Amino acid sequence: MKPKALVFDAYGTLFDVHSVVELCEMLWPGRGATLSQLWRTKQLEYTWQRSLMRRYQDFGQVTEGALSYACSALGLPLDAERRRRVMAAYGSLTTFPEVREALAELKARRLKLAILSNGSPAMLRPVVANAGLGGLITAVISVDPKKIYKPAPVVYRHAVERLRVPKAAIGFVSSNCWDACGAKSFGFRVFWINRSGAPVDALGAPPDHIIKGLDELPPLLAQPARTR
Amino acid sequence: MKPKALVFDAYGTLFDVHSVVELCEMLWPGRGATLSQLWRTKQLEYTWQRSLMRRYQDFGQVTEGALSYACSALGLPLDAERRRRVMAAYGSLTTFPEVREALAELKARRLKLAILSNGSPAMLRPVVANAGLGGLITAVISVDPKKIYKPAPVVYRHAVERLRVPKAAIGFVSSNCWDACGAKSFGFRVFWINRSGAPVDALGAPPDHIIKGLDELPPLLAQPARTR
Repeated sequence: MKPKALVFDAYGTLFDVHSVVELCEMLWPGRGATLSQLWRTKQLEYTWQRSLMRRYQDFGQVTEGALSYACSALGLPLDAERRRRVMAAYGSLTTFPEVREALAELKARRLKLAILSNGSPAMLRPVVANAGLGGLITAVISVDPKKIYKPAPVVYRHAVERLRVPKAAIGFVSSNCWDACGAKSFGFRVFWINRSGAPVDALGAPPDHIIKGLDELPPLLAQPARTR
Repeated sequence: MKPKALVFDAYGTLFDVHSVVELCEMLWPGRGATLSQLWRTKQLEYTWQRSLMRRYQDFGQVTEGALSYACSALGLPLDAERRRRVMAAYGSLTTFPEVREALAELKARRLKLAILSNGSPAMLRPVVANAGLGGLITAVISVDPKKIYKPAPVVYRHAVERLRVPKAAIGFVSSNCWDACGAKSFGFRVFWINRSGAPVDALGAPPDHIIKGLDELPPLLAQPARTR
């Protein structure tokens, strides 16, 4: 079935979190990269662990908890001002360079474009507005009403319900391989943006397509559907 | 309530996985530590992600899938012989030095001792036998019949059902902080073995006790219960 809607992951897929890494390096010179990496690792682990424990906390709180852990583990001081600044940086991320043009081209083909993110509505609102994507994205969907995180199937189903498009007519795009696999396992047609040349995760549901950037998406969708 | 049973996590808690790291270093000189670390990270991530995706695969398969991923990501060759050897090493892990004496002392106090592990029965059987713990451990409980991994509450409940001891009378011991938090969230009295001096994970259910090794457990349990 030809896609009628495209659903994009947010962080790392549309939005480049590199500016947060740079700010960390400025606030904790020489330790920024290590801190950002541990912070991101813990942030994701907490989403999976809390989902399984049924102790959902919104993504802002999870992200702050992960930051506290990472600073403590690395012995880095975290005062209120530094905390405020790195958390605020999450609200003003830039998009990857090819994003705007690719989205505009897809939108021009009358595809419904949406975001499905772990981010809480309060985190997603400013980042979409700041990046000027409001006119291109029809729906910004957070996992928050479901009180569980990706890759739980109920989260992908939530996007289907919000968009009112059959899941077979939804293309899902993510740079996180485990998210791509989760979406594939649920039943979307999936495009994994593999920017770093990583292997496919052994999760039993490999993505349908592997691309290097969002600019590859419009030509790929213009091709007639192949029998897979 | 005074504990009537103690439930131990296996890998990293009773059994030292260091010998697997050493073997990796022997098979992939100069890359053993990096490989082991990525392998372990992916092994855990897959347990959480597959649990949320409802695509359970037993721990042996998950561990092999994570090994393939890690070798591929690092560009390391993985032939059938090397695969066989590192997987076999999982079956002959040694216990941490203080384990046998601590378990014997706890057993002498008529505490029921059990293991609750992500490991499949086929993986756990040889490691418990090789370490000579058969006479000390009453029950080796795998998450496998539940087809989901820690820290899902159903897994901890499975141990309660198998042991037929009320959960308030079960002490749970793990060196993995997220596992300790999962067990605490479920309702066990929890002892976290913090061998590396890490911070407590921000999962909303901190362990009751933090110890540095299993040898601290018998004296701690001999103390009268405090009101917390």
